Amino acid sequence: MENGTAAEKWRFRGNEVLNTASAITIRGVLNEVMDNIEESGPRPIIPLGHGDPSAFPCFRTAQIAEEAIVDAVRSTQFNGYASTVGIPPARSAIADYLSKDLPYKLSPDDIYLTIGCTQAIEAILTVLARPNANILLPRPGFPFYEARAAYSHLKVRHFDLLPEKGWEVDLDAVEALADENTVAMAIINPGNPCGNVFKYQHLKKVAATARKLGILVIADEVYDHLTFGSSPFVPMGVFGNIVPVITVGSISKRWIVPDLVAISKFICILFVFQETYVFVTSFQIVDCIKGFLNITSDPATFIQGALPQILGKTGDDFFSKIVNILREVADICYDRIEEIPCITCPSKPEGSMFVMVKLNLALLEDIKDDIDFCVKLAKEESVVILPGAAVGLKNWLRITFAIEPSSLEEGLGRIKAFSLRHAKKQ
Amino acid sequence: MENGTAAEKWRFRGNEVLNTASAITIRGVLNEVMDNIEESGPRPIIPLGHGDPSAFPCFRTAQIAEEAIVDAVRSTQFNGYASTVGIPPARSAIADYLSKDLPYKLSPDDIYLTIGCTQAIEAILTVLARPNANILLPRPGFPFYEARAAYSHLKVRHFDLLPEKGWEVDLDAVEALADENTVAMAIINPGNPCGNVFKYQHLKKVAATARKLGILVIADEVYDHLTFGSSPFVPMGVFGNIVPVITVGSISKRWIVPDLVAISKFICILFVFQETYVFVTSFQIVDCIKGFLNITSDPATFIQGALPQILGKTGDDFFSKIVNILREVADICYDRIEEIPCITCPSKPEGSMFVMVKLNLALLEDIKDDIDFCVKLAKEESVVILPGAAVGLKNWLRITFAIEPSSLEEGLGRIKAFSLRHAKKQ
Repeated sequence: MENGTAAEKWRFRGNEVLNTASAITIRGVLNEVMDNIEESGPRPIIPLGHGDPSAFPCFRTAQIAEEAIVDAVRSTQFNGYASTVGIPPARSAIADYLSKDLPYKLSPDDIYLTIGCTQAIEAILTVLARPNANILLPRPGFPFYEARAAYSHLKVRHFDLLPEKGWEVDLDAVEALADENTVAMAIINPGNPCGNVFKYQHLKKVAATARKLGILVIADEVYDHLTFGSSPFVPMGVFGNIVPVITVGSISKRWIVPDLVAISKFICILFVFQETYVFVTSFQIVDCIKGFLNITSDPATFIQGALPQILGKTGDDFFSKIVNILREVADICYDRIEEIPCITCPSKPEGSMFVMVKLNLALLEDIKDDIDFCVKLAKEESVVILPGAAVGLKNWLRITFAIEPSSLEEGLGRIKAFSLRHAKKQ
Repeated sequence: MENGTAAEKWRFRGNEVLNTASAITIRGVLNEVMDNIEESGPRPIIPLGHGDPSAFPCFRTAQIAEEAIVDAVRSTQFNGYASTVGIPPARSAIADYLSKDLPYKLSPDDIYLTIGCTQAIEAILTVLARPNANILLPRPGFPFYEARAAYSHLKVRHFDLLPEKGWEVDLDAVEALADENTVAMAIINPGNPCGNVFKYQHLKKVAATARKLGILVIADEVYDHLTFGSSPFVPMGVFGNIVPVITVGSISKRWIVPDLVAISKFICILFVFQETYVFVTSFQIVDCIKGFLNITSDPATFIQGALPQILGKTGDDFFSKIVNILREVADICYDRIEEIPCITCPSKPEGSMFVMVKLNLALLEDIKDDIDFCVKLAKEESVVILPGAAVGLKNWLRITFAIEPSSLEEGLGRIKAFSLRHAKKQ
């Protein structure tokens, strides 16, 4: 068939909404940056863009996690189709795991397994989307929320995280942004991209504000327990008696197995009071989540089958090993950045695997903006970092420190050399 | 917080579209049927409802498939995030596997990995959905298509599969149903729920009709190569030079690993002529699929990593073993059904794991319809079969024969006893 005739004849087309929704993703931006690196360059590429430490031996996951998967595969007990909400042993194991940090006990029925954080976020935003509804999202944030909101026609309003206040939520802005069509606000704690950890009192204020506004709190706790500063991790669920909370959790970060997102992330709905449960149910949230899970893919059953062993048997020594490495690299990252004139770090990272640093373009000769900085850095130094524009903060940069210490030193050294080479001559 | 005050105060609601879309699913209907079985009954439950033979030793998957997963986990090579379209080795392995049955060679770039058939169908229907567009779906069919179409606001028009013609597509109906807003038609071959296998000449007519109408053909070949009758499996891609075809493929059925749907199903877009490629690209289908995959979950990387070994190393002895068992149980199923007065089987199953049989209510005393039949059968005989209503054909029944032969005999024996007990007294 020929082009011309065919083009007139054929009736199917693509769906533009998809292109709009997927226009800005971290992966997309990073790919653009990496396209500027010549693979055959003399020096190894230093990946400070994507938070994926699993590639580095020092971050290898717990042996028990690998064994648990292998056992589940070999058992042939988990080859069949599972319940759409997750298999009971997995839901129980997660409920017990989360209850350790809460003032009350979760039921397995509060737990819904999804395929990674991505599907968990997709589920929540799909469930909440209805005509004219809007959601409050943090800036900087995780653009996947914006993408799914756009796809679900859920309007987005951004509140700032305040660098001068350790990236706390600008609660006045939250109150000013909300109206009768606001359905929820999202927070990410420990913070991606900022590496901050919200304190108990601040989270309590978030809960009070959300209650006052009558909105749901989506607590993205994918980096739970990856804290190495002065503030301990406090789950938002602790305030489930003040406001309904939906927590997006995961084992993929604490266990350093992003690949296992296939199981490792899950939605957990926390209800403290029976009345809350009854009323939220009457608002269809639970039914809608079940409905969503009915018409989407499920996490592989054998991976669900491995969860109880992974959650139950991983030793504290593994967790402290990982946290100690993260503390070490976070320190290296912070100290080296201090030595680079054109970028400043408002506060030392205390959690997650990232830090946001501000780019001072006035000190640079021939750098247009954050994207230009990252593109030229990739081309000249084979170092990959994420332009802040990708997470909603133009002329900032997101750097991940979750890589081998020596590679991190090397990478930041190259960024320093690059910055000095492009510094404005006084 | 109290119910009343809260109910006035809180602003979030569920999304009704989800409830509508997920209203009819096979799982949902089967759960309703199974709710009538008392677990503690004297006899074991015989599951003839769901096509999941993995529970039975005789259908155990190939050792190589289990080993491949184990090796991939142990290798620690596949712990990281993957490209959203799938990792290159997996795409190549699938392209080679499919090309064996095609008159041309597929490129790895024609392959897109999704999380199971469900996500593949979700991707295609999402990509094709645009205002006023409609899609032609088979009746009986696989209701997940209807669910995803409803969710994407893609209008559905049903064409019949003709029992008297071995469940061939009613192509006159297809032509009569199509209009300028019709974007695609879907076929499932080998057939679920009918157990039929389309012949080469019929598929060629389907291609010609689709071309005449200017619509895309979605070929659901999840049961590829599971054929045991006179008709061999012919992939729709063979006619990719007549009409653009999107094939939904899988290893989950041929390898009997439904759980491995996490990798095992994939979208494969077949283009024969460069012009076709250029023109379909210009219609954004490819970009939209990439866009969809950018904002949804990916198949676990380590499972993708196992694919080349699974596809490359599984011996023919395994496939023939499975096909021989299926032929044996299909024969048992057909013969036993012959002995049951109130149900008739229009044609002997030649593929997949299912057969559709017609219920003759006139011969029954106190059975209202197919659902009533299945509910009472579950209650009285602990046998689970699927009411035809769940797949679009009221007062028919879908029976799966992909279980241990002895259990199948037992189950059909109970159905016979049930039918005789409820037979109308002459």
